[in-house]
Amino acid sequence: MSRKRYLLTPGPTPVPPEVLAALSQPVVHHRSPDFRPIYERTIERLKEVFRTDGDVLLFGSAGTGAMESAVANLCSPGERVLVVSAGHFGERWRAIASAYGTTVEALEYTWGEVPSAEDLAARLVELGGAKAVFLTHSETSTGVVCDLQTLSAAASEHGALSVVDAVSSLGAVPVETDAWGLDVVLSGSQKALMTPPGLAMVSASERAWAARGDSPRFYFDWERTRKAQAALDAPFTPPVSIVAGLDVALGLLLDAGLDAVFDRHVRLGRACREGAKAMGLELFSPDEDRSAVVTAIRAPEGIDATELVLTLRDRFGITIANGQGPLKGKIFRIGHIGYFDVFDITTALAAVELVLADLGADIERGVAVTRALDAYDERARV
Amino acid sequence: MSRKRYLLTPGPTPVPPEVLAALSQPVVHHRSPDFRPIYERTIERLKEVFRTDGDVLLFGSAGTGAMESAVANLCSPGERVLVVSAGHFGERWRAIASAYGTTVEALEYTWGEVPSAEDLAARLVELGGAKAVFLTHSETSTGVVCDLQTLSAAASEHGALSVVDAVSSLGAVPVETDAWGLDVVLSGSQKALMTPPGLAMVSASERAWAARGDSPRFYFDWERTRKAQAALDAPFTPPVSIVAGLDVALGLLLDAGLDAVFDRHVRLGRACREGAKAMGLELFSPDEDRSAVVTAIRAPEGIDATELVLTLRDRFGITIANGQGPLKGKIFRIGHIGYFDVFDITTALAAVELVLADLGADIERGVAVTRALDAYDERARV
Repeated sequence: MSRKRYLLTPGPTPVPPEVLAALSQPVVHHRSPDFRPIYERTIERLKEVFRTDGDVLLFGSAGTGAMESAVANLCSPGERVLVVSAGHFGERWRAIASAYGTTVEALEYTWGEVPSAEDLAARLVELGGAKAVFLTHSETSTGVVCDLQTLSAAASEHGALSVVDAVSSLGAVPVETDAWGLDVVLSGSQKALMTPPGLAMVSASERAWAARGDSPRFYFDWERTRKAQAALDAPFTPPVSIVAGLDVALGLLLDAGLDAVFDRHVRLGRACREGAKAMGLELFSPDEDRSAVVTAIRAPEGIDATELVLTLRDRFGITIANGQGPLKGKIFRIGHIGYFDVFDITTALAAVELVLADLGADIERGVAVTRALDAYDERARV
Repeated sequence: MSRKRYLLTPGPTPVPPEVLAALSQPVVHHRSPDFRPIYERTIERLKEVFRTDGDVLLFGSAGTGAMESAVANLCSPGERVLVVSAGHFGERWRAIASAYGTTVEALEYTWGEVPSAEDLAARLVELGGAKAVFLTHSETSTGVVCDLQTLSAAASEHGALSVVDAVSSLGAVPVETDAWGLDVVLSGSQKALMTPPGLAMVSASERAWAARGDSPRFYFDWERTRKAQAALDAPFTPPVSIVAGLDVALGLLLDAGLDAVFDRHVRLGRACREGAKAMGLELFSPDEDRSAVVTAIRAPEGIDATELVLTLRDRFGITIANGQGPLKGKIFRIGHIGYFDVFDITTALAAVELVLADLGADIERGVAVTRALDAYDERARV
């Protein structure tokens, strides 16, 4: 019997069987009546998940392609932009904005710190403004979910467009595109949207549409895609199988109800944190309900997180994530985005507990799983 | 019982069941040992199909993304390039090169004409050279497959890089990347490679690597992707399910043998043309063995190809392609790329014959299918 696999990383994430089944359907032509209703429904469902009345544009790419589309469509070379960076994906914003020749300023935090609206406002005043502020809603590298509403409001108050990487947050924690006046929101199929990687999506406010710049772009050009989608067409052959999967996944998400899904993520995060603390581990990501996407945990004294991750993989077929960049070996990360329930958390905790004990860590045995189950229920009982 | 569907267009193309099964496997992490061997094998197999010892870079995008990567990596604004255009995809080269601010010159043909090396050489002399010549190997909009070897040689002799859109040709007709000295070759997963859309691939010669320009790029940057692939990594989350499917499809292709696959495509093209002619139809694409990718056929006097295409779809669930651009309604196109055998051709011919007769066309009944079967066998018997 082949060993079971447990994908417990913050992305790609596990995909429900109904979605996998949709992926294995025969390929249909993207301009045929077999595909157009799927395409139309997927776009409409995305608008519900983005909570926007505006267009949501689909791109056949990783989330990074959607990030690049924001820079390429909004910015002209030499324009000043501000990147809020507190981890790996903040750094990516900076790299893309630099590649397009913008004048990149940064509001920089140590990895793991939580960006604040006050800092952002002060930095914008100091700079005399910026065309756009690039934000990372859920910094997957550290587990920090920022307070997007206050940050985007600060950007807006100081005349800057808010551009939000919501790749690992959309569908897991609230993203109120219209209500919070978010100018650009982008995400990908492979996180809380419970679909394999291959599709990215972008919403843009009227203010963002009006502020487009003149950087070169073709595949990621917003206008070309908007026009094509308005005719229920796609500008280029879309990944039809992934779209078919996303359609099914969005149906599952919306049938459950977005608010119920958000509540489940809060409880999963709480279960993971409480379980980790119960065995004596120290959290790296903040111990608060907003940390509902990925839990980052410090490796105990004398333990290399890399060894923990490799051992879990080799002994049990369990994939969790190591730290990235400066945090490699120092923290490990358990994802709980999308198609996760509490028993994924208890599996992760039980296996982490066993391996850490074998590696000689001084941890408490036999309490994490029960504590996680209790914590998952507590919120519901309150 | 739900009606059977027949996807007989020049792309996306039908996908073998083994490939669909691979797509429905649980998602694995792209940096795990569950994925790395698949990734490595896929890249190695692509090198065999490209017939190159150089790198083949994978991008999660449509083929157009790979086209854009060629322009963005090679060209700086203001540089003179030459686009050879004889149809819809030649026009796309022009649009992308224009979007990047190059000085775009054209060697322009009426849609359906076959570009010649003599014309190309003369145009390059007239221009005093160009940095790159953008070629379309198989112009899917017209069914013309050009003589890539002589065209690329003409570009090279006049000091220009040859950049080849091989989206619908690679794996169907010979593309000798190294032997013909092709500087850039790009393709996509969804044609002769028998995989759903979502992946594009690019090879570049040392000459092309050395000639890179300074247009902005990030997601489609060659160097970032080459470095990541060298470490068996991917620069961004790749569409792991599509890669898993492509791996299986390339295995099928290489097990059959590339030369045997090319021969089958020649015979499929011959069968389609002979069958069409037998019922009295006039070919639009050239009546020669090189027309092995898609057969373009003129709509008979008084018949609108659009009506033919819609009727086939609505009555029989058969999808063939209409003409594009100026040829819409005037021609129809039957694809035979990838996972096709002769009975796909006879199905297309039988249905076209029936619908054309019903629409009042003056055609010969009852001969096309038999003639196609004979023509498919003739070459084998010679």
